[in-house]
Amino acid sequence: MNIAIIGCGGVGKALLELLERQQNLLAKENLYINVKYIIGRHDDARVALADPELDAAVILTPTNKDNGQPGLDYARAFLSAGKHVVTADKGLIIHGYRELQDLAETKGVKLAMGCTTGGALPSINAGIFDMAGSSILSIEGILNGTTNFILDEMEASGCEYADALAKAQQDGIAEADPTLDVEGWDTAGKLLILTKVLMDERVTLDDVQVEGICRLTAADIQRATENGCRYKLVGRAAFDASGKLKLTVKPEQIPEGNLLYPVGGKNKAVRYVSDTLGELVIMGGASGTTPAAASVLRDLVSIHRKRI
Amino acid sequence: MNIAIIGCGGVGKALLELLERQQNLLAKENLYINVKYIIGRHDDARVALADPELDAAVILTPTNKDNGQPGLDYARAFLSAGKHVVTADKGLIIHGYRELQDLAETKGVKLAMGCTTGGALPSINAGIFDMAGSSILSIEGILNGTTNFILDEMEASGCEYADALAKAQQDGIAEADPTLDVEGWDTAGKLLILTKVLMDERVTLDDVQVEGICRLTAADIQRATENGCRYKLVGRAAFDASGKLKLTVKPEQIPEGNLLYPVGGKNKAVRYVSDTLGELVIMGGASGTTPAAASVLRDLVSIHRKRI
Repeated sequence: MNIAIIGCGGVGKALLELLERQQNLLAKENLYINVKYIIGRHDDARVALADPELDAAVILTPTNKDNGQPGLDYARAFLSAGKHVVTADKGLIIHGYRELQDLAETKGVKLAMGCTTGGALPSINAGIFDMAGSSILSIEGILNGTTNFILDEMEASGCEYADALAKAQQDGIAEADPTLDVEGWDTAGKLLILTKVLMDERVTLDDVQVEGICRLTAADIQRATENGCRYKLVGRAAFDASGKLKLTVKPEQIPEGNLLYPVGGKNKAVRYVSDTLGELVIMGGASGTTPAAASVLRDLVSIHRKRI
Repeated sequence: MNIAIIGCGGVGKALLELLERQQNLLAKENLYINVKYIIGRHDDARVALADPELDAAVILTPTNKDNGQPGLDYARAFLSAGKHVVTADKGLIIHGYRELQDLAETKGVKLAMGCTTGGALPSINAGIFDMAGSSILSIEGILNGTTNFILDEMEASGCEYADALAKAQQDGIAEADPTLDVEGWDTAGKLLILTKVLMDERVTLDDVQVEGICRLTAADIQRATENGCRYKLVGRAAFDASGKLKLTVKPEQIPEGNLLYPVGGKNKAVRYVSDTLGELVIMGGASGTTPAAASVLRDLVSIHRKRI
C-alpha cells in the first residue's frame, strides 16, 4: 500500500516510527505500507494526486474548527483522485463529513476517521461494528483527556482550576493555549462526529450547547465529593421527552457506582445505549502521538482488510 | 440472506422475534434475512446442507465443554457445504476453532462467534477490529454475569454464598444447575476462545487453572470491603516473567479505582493491554436471550457487510 502523509508533525513522525516497528506484524497479513510522499505546508500535492500507484492519503493537518481548512480541500482532492483517505483532522470531518462520505462512495474508496474521536479509543469503530444490527439511541462520553486530567488533579489536591491547568501544562498534557480543550470545543467536535456517523443525524457545531470547565472552583469539586460524586466534562447526544435530539457538552456530577466514575487521569470513555444490544461502554485509548498514530495505522489495516 | 437455525431454544426464538423487529433497519442496508430452515434435535439437516440457496447456518446447540458435540459436527458439515456459520455454542469453538477456521478459509466462507464470549459484549470484535495493527499482550475479563451478580449480592447484603446463589436462581439469573458458571468453567471457556482468536495461541481447557466462587464466605467478602476491594471472578491470560503464557480463572480482589471495580450486577467487562494502542476496556453486554440473539444478528450483519 503506497501512502502519502499530508502534514507531518508529531503524529506523522510517530506514524513513520510505528510503520517500521510494526513491519513484521503487518507482513503477517500481507500488508506492506510504503510512504511514497510526505507533503508539508509548502509542498505541491499534484504529483501525488496524479500518481496511479498511490493508494491512500493520510491527512494529519491541524484541526480548524471554523472551516476545516486546509484539510478539507486535501480530502476532497485525494478522494476525487480515487485515493482512500485516513484522517486525524476533526475540522474536515465536522465541516465535510456527508459530502466527503458521498464522494468516497462514488469513487469506490474509503474515508476513515477513527483517530478523530478519542485517538486510540475506538469510539467510531465500536459504534459501527459492535452495534451492527442495532440502533444507537444515545451517546455519552468523556472525550477529552486534558480536561479529565485537570478535574482529577483538582479533586486529588483540592487546588483551584488555574493551578491544575498550570500543572497539566507543566506535565505537557495541556497545550500552551488550552482554549479548545478547557472550553469544551474539542469534546463538542468529537461528539458531533460521533452523532453524525453513528446516529446519522445532520447536526452542526451550532447545535451543541457547550460549557467548559474553567468556571469550576475548588469548592464545587469539594461539594461534589461530599455528595459521592465526581465532576467530568461530558459530551452527550440524547433525545429529549419531545423526541428532539439534544447535544450538550458540560461538567456533570457523576455518582460513584457509575461506570464512568473511575475514568481517571488522561483516560477517555464513551457509552452507547442501544435498542437491542443493551449498553456498551468503552474506555482507554492512551493519549499521545504514538497511540494517535496507532489509531491511524488501525484504519489503514482495516482498509487493507476491506473491513471498513 | 437465507439462513438455517440449528437448535431453536431461547436464543433461537429471540432471534426470530428480532429478525422481524429489526426488519426496517436491516432493509436500509439491503439485508433481507429469510429463515429457510429450523433444525431441531430430531430433524435431518441434509436438505439444508444440499440447498444451493442457503447462505448461512446459525448454530445454537447447547455448549458441551467435553467434546463440542453436536454443534461441532454441524459446523463442520455446513462449512464444508460452503455455508457461513454463526454460532453461540462455546463448545464447538473450544474444541474446533483452528480446524473450523481453516475449513472456512478453504471454502471462502466465514465463521463468526461473537456471541460465545460474553453475548452482547463485543469482546471478540473489539479485539480484532479495535486492536488492528497492534498486538494484544494480555486479556483480563469479568466474563460471567451470573457469578458477578452473586458476588455483588454477597457484598450488598452480607449474606453467604448459598443464599446469594438461591436469590440468583429465584431471579432467573442462575440456572437450576449452576455448576458451569459458579465453578468458573463458563469463564474459562470464554477466556480460552479469546486467547485462541486474539492472541493466536494454541491452548486447551487443560491449560487453564480454574477456581470458582463457591468457597468464598461472607467473611472473605467483608475483609475485601475493609481493604477497599471487591471480589470479582476474573479470567486472565498473561505472560509470566519467564515469557510463558498463563491462563487463570479465579476470584480476585479488585481495588477501588480500578476500571473493573464498578462492573456490577450481571454486567461483564474485558480489558486488553496492547503494545501500541494502550489499553482498552469494554463493558456492558446486557444479559438474556434477546441480547444474545442481537449478538448473533450482529455477526450476520457483519458477514453481509463483508466486514468479518
